[in-house]
Amino acid sequence: MESYELRVRESFARQGMMKTLEAQLSVVQRGATEIRFPCTAAVSQQHGFVHAGAVTTVLDSACGYAALTVAPEGFEVLSVEFKVNLLAPATGDYVIARAQVKRAGKTLTICTADAFAWRPEGEKLVAMMFATMIIRPLER
Amino acid sequence: MESYELRVRESFARQGMMKTLEAQLSVVQRGATEIRFPCTAAVSQQHGFVHAGAVTTVLDSACGYAALTVAPEGFEVLSVEFKVNLLAPATGDYVIARAQVKRAGKTLTICTADAFAWRPEGEKLVAMMFATMIIRPLER
Amino acid sequence: MESYELRVRESFARQGMMKTLEAQLSVVQRGATEIRFPCTAAVSQQHGFVHAGAVTTVLDSACGYAALTVAPEGFEVLSVEFKVNLLAPATGDYVIARAQVKRAGKTLTICTADAFAWRPEGEKLVAMMFATMIIRPLER
Amino acid sequence: MESYELRVRESFARQGMMKTLEAQLSVVQRGATEIRFPCTAAVSQQHGFVHAGAVTTVLDSACGYAALTVAPEGFEVLSVEFKVNLLAPATGDYVIARAQVKRAGKTLTICTADAFAWRPEGEKLVAMMFATMIIRPLER
Repeated sequence: MESYELRVRESFARQGMMKTLEAQLSVVQRGATEIRFPCTAAVSQQHGFVHAGAVTTVLDSACGYAALTVAPEGFEVLSVEFKVNLLAPATGDYVIARAQVKRAGKTLTICTADAFAWRPEGEKLVAMMFATMIIRPLER
Repeated sequence: MESYELRVRESFARQGMMKTLEAQLSVVQRGATEIRFPCTAAVSQQHGFVHAGAVTTVLDSACGYAALTVAPEGFEVLSVEFKVNLLAPATGDYVIARAQVKRAGKTLTICTADAFAWRPEGEKLVAMMFATMIIRPLER
Repeated sequence: MESYELRVRESFARQGMMKTLEAQLSVVQRGATEIRFPCTAAVSQQHGFVHAGAVTTVLDSACGYAALTVAPEGFEVLSVEFKVNLLAPATGDYVIARAQVKRAGKTLTICTADAFAWRPEGEKLVAMMFATMIIRPLER
Repeated sequence: MESYELRVRESFARQGMMKTLEAQLSVVQRGATEIRFPCTAAVSQQHGFVHAGAVTTVLDSACGYAALTVAPEGFEVLSVEFKVNLLAPATGDYVIARAQVKRAGKTLTICTADAFAWRPEGEKLVAMMFATMIIRPLER
């Protein structure tokens, strides 16, 4: 396992929120990650769809970890801001968030991510994120 | 209880995600709502702070319900998009999201919301949301 | 010329702001447009780069016209909201904005657009837009 | 004149784009600015309203200069990203953008700004901006 993947997997394992969502880090590549979680009643909104906040949560983690894969050793990544467009109700078996680094700067890294609802008949794009991350030395 | 408050409270009670966050709908007024949830390990990110996604989740629900308080009877509210700026680590006893309707249109309603970390020594602003909601007839 | 292109070109010709920027509508395809304008002192910010507002202006027009190419006859497109990330100083001979429709809905259409600074040695990505447009019957 | 006001006014005078819009810097206070420009055909969109890009341009400058009023000497301000919601057609005699610093950090400053269309019968809110600015040492 590459050192960047180890770093990302260790951090992911410390996120209680990912356990709460039963989320799995399914892909870690340099500049890209994928996180998925099951569509259960525990993450529902009033109509039984997945809450936009749960979708946003994995989009945000996916963006942060995509940024971390390209950050120097000894640095951490924090979300500065993000924007999410909700395109369709999130309903299916899983929600899958896929993030990519668009531009890695010295201080700021820009990521985009798409969220798909996975159903046996195929994937459907349900949300898009555009995120700004800040890179800074790890406080020890 | 006003009919708009009833409508909001019934919808809130159906959101499994709010139960998962142990969230409470602490204020419902015409054009404004407040939701709060405790800072537990179940909503943490890798440093032990509250995950930005959990904060966003209650900001989004708070905005949606603020919009619902001013929507006509027989209509529902869906999030179109939102933007969140994360200003400080969310750490404390509770996160409190307060949303206001800025402009209620025929089709779209614009809301803003602030999230505060509540600590015995006071509240600290930790995040801001700017959201667009769509109002449409309830499907029955 | 396809009817959607005619519609877009007629509307573009009525935008005084495009004339002020000396902007040209260089591409009109179904679901995509390109607008470019020269980097002159008339659009500069304090360091001599192109003002982020000028870049945003053509990104917005490019998104709006991309949405218009897929809108039904007799309908118009208005910007609801957009988000712009500024990635690098806009400096060169031209700024080129390229927009694509990501999802065309009955009421709302989502577009993305990239802005490039064109220099003899190549293009550089300087800004990205994520926009929500509303489609509504033309008022006559 | 305070040194921060001098700094802002000197920078504003160098923005060719502000001259093109015939914009005036009508207020400079610590943490807040106001910029206005006339609604002329040179800034119009296809319906004769002021182009959302022109409104965004002064919102962006107003936010940047609000951030500059609270930045240390020898530092400059650049826009990282902004989001704009367009609430009503901009039509009237003037567009007035008013920006405030919401949080000034060591690296990033968050601003909000509102744009109003001024008409003899009163002001109307037409757009809102939410912006992130980066503060960095002036390159000489």
